[in-house]
This record gives sequence, C-alpha cells and structure tokens, in this order.
Amino acid sequence: MSSTTPLLVVGSVAIDSIRTPFGERERSLGGSATHCSVAASFFTDVGVVAVIGDDFSEEDEAVFHERRINTASLQRIPGGKTFRWAGEYGFDLNTARTLDTQLNVFADFKPQLSGAAKRSPFLFLGNIQPALQREVREQADARFVAMDTMNYWIENTREELLKTIAVVDAMIINDAEVRQLAGEPNLIRAVRKILSWGPQMLVVKRGEYGAALFTRDSYFATPAFPLEGVFDPTGAGDSFAGGFMGYLAQADKIDEVTLRRAVIYGSVMASYNVEEFSCDRLRRLKPDEIRDRFHQFKQFTHFET
Amino acid sequence: MSSTTPLLVVGSVAIDSIRTPFGERERSLGGSATHCSVAASFFTDVGVVAVIGDDFSEEDEAVFHERRINTASLQRIPGGKTFRWAGEYGFDLNTARTLDTQLNVFADFKPQLSGAAKRSPFLFLGNIQPALQREVREQADARFVAMDTMNYWIENTREELLKTIAVVDAMIINDAEVRQLAGEPNLIRAVRKILSWGPQMLVVKRGEYGAALFTRDSYFATPAFPLEGVFDPTGAGDSFAGGFMGYLAQADKIDEVTLRRAVIYGSVMASYNVEEFSCDRLRRLKPDEIRDRFHQFKQFTHFET
Repeated sequence: MSSTTPLLVVGSVAIDSIRTPFGERERSLGGSATHCSVAASFFTDVGVVAVIGDDFSEEDEAVFHERRINTASLQRIPGGKTFRWAGEYGFDLNTARTLDTQLNVFADFKPQLSGAAKRSPFLFLGNIQPALQREVREQADARFVAMDTMNYWIENTREELLKTIAVVDAMIINDAEVRQLAGEPNLIRAVRKILSWGPQMLVVKRGEYGAALFTRDSYFATPAFPLEGVFDPTGAGDSFAGGFMGYLAQADKIDEVTLRRAVIYGSVMASYNVEEFSCDRLRRLKPDEIRDRFHQFKQFTHFET
Repeated sequence: MSSTTPLLVVGSVAIDSIRTPFGERERSLGGSATHCSVAASFFTDVGVVAVIGDDFSEEDEAVFHERRINTASLQRIPGGKTFRWAGEYGFDLNTARTLDTQLNVFADFKPQLSGAAKRSPFLFLGNIQPALQREVREQADARFVAMDTMNYWIENTREELLKTIAVVDAMIINDAEVRQLAGEPNLIRAVRKILSWGPQMLVVKRGEYGAALFTRDSYFATPAFPLEGVFDPTGAGDSFAGGFMGYLAQADKIDEVTLRRAVIYGSVMASYNVEEFSCDRLRRLKPDEIRDRFHQFKQFTHFET
C-alpha cells in the first residue's frame, strides 16, 4: 500500500513487559506509534512510520492489519530486535518505574518518508528523539503537526527539543512535562511560555484528572472519564493523541469547536485503552461505545447557567 | 442578634502565620469557619459557631461584620488565646507544611447551639474533632448537613469519624482524604465505599484539578478555574464549601441542577480566595465578579456534541 492517509503517525513500536498490581504480561505490544495509530484508526485512515525487528510476530502485526492501518512504512530490520521496554506500576498506577529499556533497532531509526507519506495532511510525532521528530517534520507537507515528548528529552536534549517545538503546530504533553519544560510551577504561566516558542496550541494531559487545551486566546478543560477499573495505564497518552489527531484528520478542520471535540475523543480513547493490557480493549472496541462515552462526557460535565 | 440564618457554619476561627514563595504574613485571619462563612455570605445569611480568645482584635472581628455574618455564637473566652496555626507552602503550593499548632481556646471548644442556631436549615461542620461534629449535628434541626474532615482524624479517631459520617448528608473532602478514608486507591471505588456508610453525596475537592460531585446515581465533574496567580492556598477548601453551601441555602433545594451549580459556585469562591492572603480578596469581591467567573466556567468547559 502506498496511498496517502489523512493521518501519519511516527514513533515507536515496542514489545513491552508490564507489571501492574492486577497482573503481568511478559510480551505486550506497545509503543507510541502503536497506541496512537490504533486509537486514531477508529476515526480515519492512518499510516504508521516505525521500525521493528525479526522478533515482531505475525500476531503483533495483525493488530495493525485488523485496524486497517497502512504499514507500508513499518520497516522490518532483518536480524534486528524490536524495541523493548519493561516497566512496573505501583498501587496508585500514576507512575511507571522503568525496569529495562533495550533500544535495539530503534537505536538506528532514521525515518524516511515515502512520497505518499509526505502528503498526509495531519502528522503526529510520537515521543522519539527531538532531532528525528524535526527531520520528519521537515520531510512532510502536513498542514497540521503535533508532537509529544518526555522528561528524558527535556533533560538531555533541550536545545534540539526547542528547535522542534518551534516548527510544530501543537504539543500534546502531560502537565509535569509542561512545568519541567518551562521551568515554571504554575501550569498556566508555563503553557504561555511554551506557546511563545512557536506552537499554536498545547494539549495538556493530566492523567486521571483529565485534559486541557490552550491556544493563544482560548482555554478548554475536561475532567477524565471516571473509571473504576484502571488496569494498565501504558499507552494512555498515546491513545489520547490518537483519538485527538484521528478526529481532527477526519473532520479536516482546526477550529475551536472541532478541537474541543477532539480533546473529548482523545479522552474517550484513553479511557478505554487503560482498561486492559496493550491494545486488547481497543481491538474489541465498537464505534457505538466511543459515541456512548462521548455523550457521557457531555452529561457529567454539563451544568445549567 | 439571635435570628435564625439559612446557613450555620461550625468550625475553627484561627490566627494563622503563613509563608508562601511569594511572601509571608505573621498574623493572618484564618480557620475553617472563617473562610467558609465569608465565602457563603455572598449567597445567603450565615451564622458562625466558633471560639476566640482575648487576642482576637476588632479588626479581625470586622471581617465578619463587614460580611454581615451573625456572630451571636462566636464565643469569646476571657483570658484565652485564639487557635494559632503556622504553615509554609513550597514552590508548587500543593501541600502545606505545618510549622506550629496551638489549640488554645479551641482545646475546650464544646459548641452549644442556641435555639435560633438549631433552626438553621443548612449546616456545615468544618474540620474539627468528629465527635464534636456529631454532637453539633445532633443538636441541630438542619435538613441538610455537610461535613469536612482531615487526615489527622482519619488516622487517629477513625471510629468516631465513621459514626459522624453516618449521620450527615454530604461530605466535602479532598481526594487524598477520600482514598485514605476508604483505604482504596481508585477514587471512584473509594467514593462508592464511603457512600455506603451513609451520606447521600460526596463532593471531592481536587485542588488545582477541580472538583467532583458523586451521588448514588449521578456524577458531575469540573476542572478548576485556571489561575496564573495562586498566592496563598490556605482556606481554598473551606471557601469552596462556603460557596457550595451558601448557594444551596440560598436556592433552598437539593436537586441535581442546583447541586451542580453549587459545585461551580464553590469553585469560583475558592479561585478568588487563593489569590491573596487570608480573606483579603473576598473582602473586596463584588457579586459581578462571582457571576463573571461562573460564566467563564461555562465557556471553558462547554463542547458541542
């Protein structure tokens, strides 16, 4: 397949090993590109740009095919091993402790976009090295580009990161990262500072507390969906990004009404993703369930003036 | 004055000594009953039941009089000293470190409600010893009673606390207290557990993340007002309770529409309270400003379905 998809997702495809207070899984399909593209695939056609090794099984690949994700740019390195991450969550599920990271084929990942991939109008740059994110951004003709990042890049490659931030339209990052990146404990001031560096908007993920959207002249916030059974938080942020970007790409516009709905769809996808290991819940998800939870968001946030 | 007010507030009146990253104040009028009754006074007539010493100045008392709070049950103990609390906030303003506590006249506080006070239809039991809260609740004829508590009582007087919880209509507590009280890290499950002990509803305060209202069959949540300048978080929870209870007492009904609005008014009052030391901001607050922020809540939480 070499057709252009409305959304292109670049990032990691990983084989995770996960322990939570509720169970463990030795081999759990993960990675930012995986969680994001699977979530986005409920809204639009998605192409994924990532790298895998020989150990990536047919069963792993089936997850992409089931969701009709374009894998033309999912590069398999013969003799290589897929990126591995092992992590553990404590009782409150808020923070992962990394037990092991093996970059493997990801260490030499140098994404080269195909002609078809370059033409995707929406591009999500998952959490990878900021210089690579920028190289991809420069190859792409996308009219709307969003990026994620993490504390590691903020601490170790700050200058590269700032250059990348200057050339994207949106950042989708968590609140701790916003404060750390801006060096400012007040979230609102931290956001204003980052917006002054280039992006038109910041989407701030607050985990169990919800999400917020800041542009230069608007603000929107939502609580998270109230879940009694959070099982595995891995990929929550990436499935949020997938719902957000997938909905925008489907709508093919970037106005305030559409952006706010996209934040809710992102929240819906994250809420399902954390209910089971890996993409298990999303693999069984029905479009009706997405609509149901979207409308529940309306019900539990509505008040009369 | 011995008239019955729609809302009666029982709790502490304190002289605080506060350090924040932005400044310090040696003598700052505080206490749960103070912050709650001042916030509530913008919505309805309020009576306060608390105890003070000789060191409580005319200037301190003027704060209550300015807001026309009924102080007939504000008992002054000759020769006694007012409750003192000294605390310090770190750079993120999320948690107070207690530097000193002197109970003083508060150690022997045994609230006896006057005939007029007993007839108040709405009663807020601020954060005091749970056995005392229950004694007050038993004296009162109120048809809607809400209580707060804190980690100290959860740890040290659990049995008393559970008995008190069983005889109130609502708890207004923060999310860490909900988890601690229920012994359950998942907030939703923790709330269900506490609701099974008696109250009709829980109002969960989440600080900078907002607030949520749980009844047995409904859920409402709101983010907090986005503040660039949080100056002193002392009393945020009590001014929230004041806005919530004051609005309910004014509306004189307890349906879902009214309760949701009350959560927003609580959030509005807390957002103003933290902008300055003590009650300084609320002392200058105009009814228009409350309405403005209420409508801003609508704007920044609204999305189209």
